[in-house]
Amino acid sequence: MRVPEIITTKMLATTRLFRIEEVHLRFSNGVERIYERMPGFGRPAVMVVAVNDADEVMLIREYAAGFHENQLTLPKGAAERGETLEQAADRELKEEVGLGARRIEWLKSLNLSPGHMGFTINIMLARDLYPERLPADEPEPPEVVPWPLARIAELIERPDFAEARALAALYLVSLHLGRIPT
Amino acid sequence: MRVPEIITTKMLATTRLFRIEEVHLRFSNGVERIYERMPGFGRPAVMVVAVNDADEVMLIREYAAGFHENQLTLPKGAAERGETLEQAADRELKEEVGLGARRIEWLKSLNLSPGHMGFTINIMLARDLYPERLPADEPEPPEVVPWPLARIAELIERPDFAEARALAALYLVSLHLGRIPT
Repeated sequence: MRVPEIITTKMLATTRLFRIEEVHLRFSNGVERIYERMPGFGRPAVMVVAVNDADEVMLIREYAAGFHENQLTLPKGAAERGETLEQAADRELKEEVGLGARRIEWLKSLNLSPGHMGFTINIMLARDLYPERLPADEPEPPEVVPWPLARIAELIERPDFAEARALAALYLVSLHLGRIPT
Repeated sequence: MRVPEIITTKMLATTRLFRIEEVHLRFSNGVERIYERMPGFGRPAVMVVAVNDADEVMLIREYAAGFHENQLTLPKGAAERGETLEQAADRELKEEVGLGARRIEWLKSLNLSPGHMGFTINIMLARDLYPERLPADEPEPPEVVPWPLARIAELIERPDFAEARALAALYLVSLHLGRIPT
């Protein structure tokens, strides 16, 4: 299966956060289609699964503007200029949770909706935690909710925990830590 | 933690597929911020995990315009007028995989990026499969890749399998089917 040929692209909208592009495609069977997509841009992003010595993962409860409600999720954010992914994960954790990590590992790059968006996020596992807080740019500090890794099935039952990336990240961490037989 | 007050909203861009909205918010501590979000709209969407009698899940390889490459993922689509989620899942499976399902269950509604987007997708488990194909609206039929449920850890190693919703859906199914001790 060959990737279609891009005949033309046209930027339809550019805002502070988003870009929407129209792509005129020709598939290998000759069919032509016009798709819309949001190309990825900007610095790489990280989502942080911080696991403490009590085997709890640091969830945060924060305002989700897309739904105008508070939801449980994981700390995340974009790398700043010159930061490695590990440094970005450590800083986000200090800003949003008030913990630093002496040991940070990259697990996998995940995407959102690859048919329509070019965004990716890097799932980072953080361990050997210690208290350290950095000032955050959020209007209100998120509430930190430590959740036992052994009780993810119970977390899934909650309607306020529904972010696919966070659930996938917990799966990756459970596999990585050997909590799920493979 | 209270949800902030919405002072005003303004539509910044509307295209065939996307809408971008500006939201002026006042948080409970008095801080005001202007956010951008993509509100959810349109009919509900489904993502289908179809498991056959050999305990394989039906993956598809299809063109991902967001990255201009082919990726492995799960069949998905929006419900049509008057369809239940179960009917939508059955139809998408017939269109994209060429299989119908006599038994379909809703597992959970997941979201993409709740801080910025109001989109959700319903994860549906389909079993008791039988051959039946419906004409699809895709320019090229996706390639069907049956993948053993017992080998998800190997799937995760592949860079062309990276959609967070699909990985989360496989986790939900593995838990639901008792393949992961809870």
